[in-house]
Formats: sequence, structure tokens, C-alpha cells
Amino acid sequence: MTPGLTAVAWDGDAVLYLDQRWLPNEARYERARSADDVAEAIASLAVRGAPCIGVFGAYGVALLRRTIADDAEFRRAAQRVRAARPTAVNLGWAVDRVLAAADPLQEARAIHDEQIAIDDAIASYGLELIRKGARVLTHCNTGPLATAGGGTALGVIIAAQRGGKKPRVFLGETRPLLQGSRLNYLELEAAGVDAVLIVDSAAAVAMREHRIDLVIVGADRIARNGDTANKVGTYALAILAAHHGIPFYVAAPRSTFDFSIAGGADIPIEERSAEEVVSFRGQRVAPDGAAAYNPAFDVTPGHLITAFVTECGIVRPPYGDSISDLELRPLVLPAHR
Amino acid sequence: MTPGLTAVAWDGDAVLYLDQRWLPNEARYERARSADDVAEAIASLAVRGAPCIGVFGAYGVALLRRTIADDAEFRRAAQRVRAARPTAVNLGWAVDRVLAAADPLQEARAIHDEQIAIDDAIASYGLELIRKGARVLTHCNTGPLATAGGGTALGVIIAAQRGGKKPRVFLGETRPLLQGSRLNYLELEAAGVDAVLIVDSAAAVAMREHRIDLVIVGADRIARNGDTANKVGTYALAILAAHHGIPFYVAAPRSTFDFSIAGGADIPIEERSAEEVVSFRGQRVAPDGAAAYNPAFDVTPGHLITAFVTECGIVRPPYGDSISDLELRPLVLPAHR
Repeated sequence: MTPGLTAVAWDGDAVLYLDQRWLPNEARYERARSADDVAEAIASLAVRGAPCIGVFGAYGVALLRRTIADDAEFRRAAQRVRAARPTAVNLGWAVDRVLAAADPLQEARAIHDEQIAIDDAIASYGLELIRKGARVLTHCNTGPLATAGGGTALGVIIAAQRGGKKPRVFLGETRPLLQGSRLNYLELEAAGVDAVLIVDSAAAVAMREHRIDLVIVGADRIARNGDTANKVGTYALAILAAHHGIPFYVAAPRSTFDFSIAGGADIPIEERSAEEVVSFRGQRVAPDGAAAYNPAFDVTPGHLITAFVTECGIVRPPYGDSISDLELRPLVLPAHR
Repeated sequence: MTPGLTAVAWDGDAVLYLDQRWLPNEARYERARSADDVAEAIASLAVRGAPCIGVFGAYGVALLRRTIADDAEFRRAAQRVRAARPTAVNLGWAVDRVLAAADPLQEARAIHDEQIAIDDAIASYGLELIRKGARVLTHCNTGPLATAGGGTALGVIIAAQRGGKKPRVFLGETRPLLQGSRLNYLELEAAGVDAVLIVDSAAAVAMREHRIDLVIVGADRIARNGDTANKVGTYALAILAAHHGIPFYVAAPRSTFDFSIAGGADIPIEERSAEEVVSFRGQRVAPDGAAAYNPAFDVTPGHLITAFVTECGIVRPPYGDSISDLELRPLVLPAHR
């Protein structure tokens, strides 16, 4: 966890969360006490990052079970939480687990504890991919704030730093909501990593001029053929990496794989308000009424992805086979930590 | 010219200019009266766009010739203007023309009048590339505000609209300074063009989901082999266009070609302050002291460019030959306007 920053936590009669929209300027903590509070915190991106909204949603449903006596009403409230964002698969998966559990709070805590262990395992496996002094490019935030554990892609980078590999990390600022500038930089700085911000459109020139060794990103949903939904801009980075002969890795827990869908065309892509593009924290940057196309995610075809880094190990092509194996594989956390 | 907006104009004892940094919120006009004023307006991007800073620099040097009696002092002042930005070739070219002229003001006015005629010719030739209802993607601002004429890439798009072709135009917002959101949208709206803003990193998904027909951008300097320096992000768009099988055009006057250099490695690339990336109009978006890599331009290799649209016609590969022809070709403005 970033020193001093806790993404989400159980708080007795509420779910405590950090409203990440105010970072890095302010660390504002809020308490969610109702289905509306939980759903709104997710929809507004106060709490974000596919694994983190899974953990938050799990605590949220555990809270609703305590506060709503009527069973039908409770299930409706849980569905409201489940539907707060459509693209990440972790939220639906976590809500369903808590709904099916005898002790909802215990189940939510188990999901949180597992996320921490899973992130550690991802970091251990990912570490092998990073050579000493590597130049790494990443996009969007995938650190502790995004998972409520140690992070996925950023967890790998932070583990490399702790392992003495001293990576140099180029961070796409990640418009429109600037998770790269606001969150990644904060987390890497706390871990002592040498980090450099770029505007997203400078990724290609950074790859060429700074001889990037690898790209590593997170994911919101991965189909059976390896097609991967992640923050908008990921698809472009995968094409640019292929053009420059740079390996492109996706670090994600097994809960991000949606084994029920064959390919990326089946992943629902959330389109968000034009307002995120045409204004910045209330300051208008385009003429009034300007139209914008604002998909929150895009889908990177599996054939552009070198490998997936999961808590069960590195998953390589052909993905039809290796992702089917992943579904069936028992989880063995690596021994070397 | 955008209705009501004049980029630069001669004003008797000063050069009038629109401080574009405040658009679209405010149309602030300023008067440059000294070499410092002119150089500062260019360096700060109050006046920007390769052809426009050429016209502005020309008027600036004409002004200095009137206000500085001492010849050596005048030449030093002109050099200060000439050095205000390193990448665009038009500024140096225009300053040199005015320095060599018997009547500096007349020469500056001639450069401005020629730019207007040249932009019209570029628009006429470019029109042929756009089919009815085409979906066009562009980056940075290349309209009247960028040239002090009718524009280059945006001039082509506006001509297509006037010709009844009703293009649909996707505009990269163009971080860090948001010329796409702030300036392009304003100019296209004034021309009645159907425009849609995107964050720069959404270009790849827009190409795929909205079946973009062509990309057209401007340029700051073009080498003899077709390598093209333009606003950062252009290189990425050219790779993404090639990946999707989309033609990639560069619209630029002959004055943007630097016939003295063989390839892109010889083009000086201006690196600007990290401040442009880590803050927005005074609002910080990254932790204090955050490092950033902020190249203002990148170089797109000629082999990724389908053709150049110039006032002398469409220039196609092989560029070694066709750009040498362009250097020698007499300018004949197209008859069909």
C-alpha cells in the first residue's frame, strides 16, 4: 500500500474509501453507507481500478446485508452495486461471491486478503521479465490504489525496484482522468522508482528515442482468446510496441479473465460523458457544447500481447489453449517469496 | 479566417496578434512592439503554427527595421526573433526573406498574401483526397489560426465542407496544450463541420470503431526524404494509420520543406518545460517536482506518409525524387478555383 494511503477498508458500519479524484492534491476519505453511496463511488471513479472496485463492491454488499433486512430489497441493492460499471469483470465476480456466501463480511475480507496475496504472486512472476536498468512504459494506474493490494503492472515494477533492478519508468498521463499523472507518479515516487511522465501521444517517440524495453499494463476484462479490455490508449500502445519490436505484457489476476466470452467483441465498453474530455476540473478547454467520443476502454487483440502475467504464472500464446489451462489450474502461489 | 478572429496583422507601429493561449475562453489581442515582444509571443506559443509564426516573424522584423536605427543592433534583434523556436522551418525562412528585402514591410505583407494564396491552393489539391461523407482524423491545429491564411490540413477539411462533402472529423485534443480542443474545434464549428473531440490515446479505437477513411495533419519541417517533424503524437498516428490500412497525408506549403537536410535525424526537436505536462493553467495534476519528458514534436518517417499536399500539387513517393522536383517546380496555383 502507498505509505499513508489506504484505497478501501471495512469500517464497522460503513466502507471507508479514498476519493481518488482529488489525488495528488488531497487525500479525502469518505464513508459509503448505502447501495447508492457504493454505486456512486464506483461510477464516479472515486474508487477505480478493476481489482479495487471488486474489493470495494464486496465490502459494499457485505454492508448492505447488515443494513437491509428484506431479502428481495437486499438483492436489488446488490445488483445496483454490480451494475455500477460495465467493463471490468472483477466487480460482478466479487459481488456474486459475497451474495453466495454464508458470511458476507468474511467473504469480502477473504476477497481482499486474496487480492493482496495474488498481487504479490503477480509481482513475483513479473519480476522475471524485467532486466536490470530496464526502461519500462506503462499506462493508467495499476498500483496499490487500483487493486487494494500491491498492484498488478505497477506491482511488478515496484517489485523490480525492491529487487535492485532500478527500472526507469515512462508513465502515460492517461487522459482524460490523468490516472498516470495523479496516481502512478505518487505510487512510484513512494517506492523510490525513477519515473518520468509523458503525454499519452508521446509514447511512440519515447519508444524510439528512449529505447523502451517493455510495455506492461493492467486489464479490466480478458476474453478466452486473449483479447483484452483496458484503459483507452492500451490498444494504441500495443500497436506501437509491435511496430518497434517491443514486448507488450498484461499483468492481471485470474479474476480478470472472463472465461465465458470467446473474444473482445463480446466485452461491453463503457462510453463516458463528453464532459471528461471538454473540461478539466471545472475549467472548460473546448467551446461550449463541443461533441466528444469518450470510450473509457479499448480492446487490444490477443495477437498483439506477448504474454499475461497472472498469479498462476506467465501465460503465453497460443491463448486459446493457455487461457483454458489457466481456468482449470489450481492456484499455487510461488514459493520464492 | 475564423469569423471574428485574426491571428496576426500589421498595426502601424506594432504587430497585432491574438494570444491563442486564452482560446476558446477569451479572444485576447496584444501588440508586439519590440524584438522581445515578438520572440516571447512565439516562444510562449501565444502565436503558434509553423506558417503563422513565419508571417508573424516577418512582420516582427519589418517592425524592428523601423524602430532600430543601428544596423548591427537590428540584425541582432532579428536573430533573436529567428531563434525563438527551433523546429519549424518557416520562421527562419521568413525572417531571412525580410532581412534580404529592400522594403521589409512590403516583403512581410507579400509573405502574408502568399500564405493566403498558398493555403487556398493546398485546399484545392487536398479536396481531391476526400470523398463525400469521409471520416477524417486530424491532430493539432492547422486552420486559419495556425497559418494566418486559410489553413493547411484544416483548410483542406473546411474546403471539403464548402464543397458539400460533409466530412465527419475526429480531433485529437493534442496534449499538452490542447490545440485540438481549444482551436480546431472553434475553427471547424465556425465552418459548420461535424467535429468530434477525442483524447489523443483514443485515436486507435476511433480508427477501428469509426472506420476512419484518412488522416491528415500539418507539418513543421520536412526533410528531403519525406521525414516530417510535426506536433508530438503525429508519429504515433502514422503508425496506427499504417496498421489499420488508412492513408496518412501531410498538408504543408513548400516553405515547410527544408531542402538542405537529408533526413529527420537532422531536424532539431524542441523539448519544452515539464510544467506543460504536470500542470494545467496553474492547476497541478502531478505531485510537486514530478519529472516529465516533453518533446513538442516528433519525426514521422517518410515511408509512413502516403502523400504530401502542397500548393504545387500532391507529392507522392518515392520522395527522394518527388521532393527534389518540388524544390525546382515553378509555383502555378491551380486554375480550378
